[in-house]
Amino acid sequence: MSILFILLFFTLTLTQAVGQQQQVPHIISPEVMNDNSVVFRLRAPNATSVIVNGTFPDARKEMTKNAEGVFEYRTTPITPDMYTYTFSVDGVKATDPSNNIVVRDGSHIESRLMIPGGITEVIDVKDVPHGKLSAVWYPSPTLGKTRRMMVYTPPGYDTSNESYPVLYLLHGAGGDEEAWVSRGRTNYILDNLIAQGKAVPMIVVIPNGNASATSAPGETPLSIRLAQDAGAMAQAGAMVGSSVPDGIVKDIIPFIEANYRVKANKENRALSGLSMGGYQTQMTSNAYPNTFNYIGVMSMGLMSTMGEYNKDNHIAQLKALQAANPKLYWIACGTTDFLYQSVLDLIKLYDEIGFKYIYRESEGGHTWNNWRLYLSEFAPMLFK
Amino acid sequence: MSILFILLFFTLTLTQAVGQQQQVPHIISPEVMNDNSVVFRLRAPNATSVIVNGTFPDARKEMTKNAEGVFEYRTTPITPDMYTYTFSVDGVKATDPSNNIVVRDGSHIESRLMIPGGITEVIDVKDVPHGKLSAVWYPSPTLGKTRRMMVYTPPGYDTSNESYPVLYLLHGAGGDEEAWVSRGRTNYILDNLIAQGKAVPMIVVIPNGNASATSAPGETPLSIRLAQDAGAMAQAGAMVGSSVPDGIVKDIIPFIEANYRVKANKENRALSGLSMGGYQTQMTSNAYPNTFNYIGVMSMGLMSTMGEYNKDNHIAQLKALQAANPKLYWIACGTTDFLYQSVLDLIKLYDEIGFKYIYRESEGGHTWNNWRLYLSEFAPMLFK
Repeated sequence: MSILFILLFFTLTLTQAVGQQQQVPHIISPEVMNDNSVVFRLRAPNATSVIVNGTFPDARKEMTKNAEGVFEYRTTPITPDMYTYTFSVDGVKATDPSNNIVVRDGSHIESRLMIPGGITEVIDVKDVPHGKLSAVWYPSPTLGKTRRMMVYTPPGYDTSNESYPVLYLLHGAGGDEEAWVSRGRTNYILDNLIAQGKAVPMIVVIPNGNASATSAPGETPLSIRLAQDAGAMAQAGAMVGSSVPDGIVKDIIPFIEANYRVKANKENRALSGLSMGGYQTQMTSNAYPNTFNYIGVMSMGLMSTMGEYNKDNHIAQLKALQAANPKLYWIACGTTDFLYQSVLDLIKLYDEIGFKYIYRESEGGHTWNNWRLYLSEFAPMLFK
Repeated sequence: MSILFILLFFTLTLTQAVGQQQQVPHIISPEVMNDNSVVFRLRAPNATSVIVNGTFPDARKEMTKNAEGVFEYRTTPITPDMYTYTFSVDGVKATDPSNNIVVRDGSHIESRLMIPGGITEVIDVKDVPHGKLSAVWYPSPTLGKTRRMMVYTPPGYDTSNESYPVLYLLHGAGGDEEAWVSRGRTNYILDNLIAQGKAVPMIVVIPNGNASATSAPGETPLSIRLAQDAGAMAQAGAMVGSSVPDGIVKDIIPFIEANYRVKANKENRALSGLSMGGYQTQMTSNAYPNTFNYIGVMSMGLMSTMGEYNKDNHIAQLKALQAANPKLYWIACGTTDFLYQSVLDLIKLYDEIGFKYIYRESEGGHTWNNWRLYLSEFAPMLFK
């Protein structure tokens, strides 16, 4: 019975997919060519213009329509890595219907492109032991909510009796607790680094950094979403102030240390974040200088040019942190990052006051390519 | 500093979102009106035609373009529930750029619509204790792979010393281990049923039912994906034969019972699945009559009309299952399901041989609305 049964189901699936349209030849998109150029294709006989946008260089190109109504564009060779892309079909953003992998960072919902080689040896799913990735709800008395976070436990956690160190990892503005998974590939990066002997087994905790939110959009109660939609700026406002640092140190860390086998001391805690999360990393480690032994600030520098910044207070906090003598204070930024100057300003201040740090400068800008790279470099420096 | 800091980030986010386009007024889509009709909107000044497709009745409608280039369509009132929809923009499928919730079942990547009331009291995220949802990798000697499944542990699992019963829950053709989460809402359905006292706390295990696959597309190693893309039918072929039942009973159940606090006996095991998973449920409970005490077949009947079906063998299996006396054998189908007749054929056969079952007939067809409804009715009957 097998073949007919299969055909029945696949016919159904296909029928649902193409709807009342005629069935048409299969399209491959994206197709990675031997030289690592990529061909994107989209069947759109009724469209006038299709543009491919993406996170690889030289994106935002007009595609060319052939006689069959298929738009096509071939890129120049692309460095092996993970990228995301969308089509703009007569001005409307669309993911690639030929590609069933979609990744999300906040409201950025995009198709995924993986070009084998290079850093994909660290960020792709490999045939190595895999840790467990869990969506965990926890009480946040500080924020008055039950909130959701992602927790990675390393391979062997469930069968060992060992206790583990913990990395707390913060996302950027517009993102949520799923960003470091969906686009950040945190669990696979850790799986691979641990399998390669480059990182020690550790737990990674990825909170939601939007203080007025409980959880990622699809996991948020409808009543809260409707209220958020009515006041998006009010929601955003909650990302500043003491609520995020307090939420991490007073709510999340005690929950993790009560519910997981954790080495519950400063020597075994790390904190890192990108962009807004890099700011929150600074705020949190400045406010709680004795809590983290490893601090990683990605793509975020000094925010002195705005509002109520008080340099004396900042320096006083940094001196307290310096006195606490964290083992690593790591700053990473790309040279074309729009926050690059703020990072130069931050390290200039640190130099002025003799605050110790390691600075990692990369090519590129405010991108997930850089943040995955940074995580793949930061994690191996931890807990050794 | 707070407000300017926020504006910086949101300006950045917005700039990334609209790219080089001019900034345009905010659009709300979907908008649920007081009468539960829904207004869909899409800004597409350069598009000729936009159609809204969806899983609600009377979908597939041409939207009307207004003077500002915004296409709009207002539905008739829709029964409260979760639905999915996409736009067809000059013939190209696109999710709704104004809606940051996208759900996936296999290659069906669609925007989510939640209309409050009715069954959303069971399927929406509510302010109740939440279980933990984990992506777990396990060895499958039967299939020669390390594979991924989703495991729901109920509220309190991590802090209690109790052992729990287990429901094994199977997806349909084209889907994977994420379908019962993304569109099936399994974790929230269980959270709510448990909080309402309607279901006993249980573990739910959601395997990947495609025997040649390891995991959902985005979680599959690139090397395996490329091989799969080259032979999609070969992959599909593996869903038949004994590999799926054996993979469940010989690989998954022992793994779960070794790694979770489980009541490891027939009385505390349930098996259910939809469509292809309903077929796999039949195959598995027929082949292993003493393993499950609760069996739920959703939207799938007798496959006697195809291929190598042997009625005598089928009846012999059913008699062995009948002799094992499972506490519940539940069959559910919608009256407009394309497999409705196959279900009538199945229950006719069961009646002929005196095989006991309970039949639940609903309105509607081969839809997630029905499968969520069925899960919300099946789970409360288990382990009591």
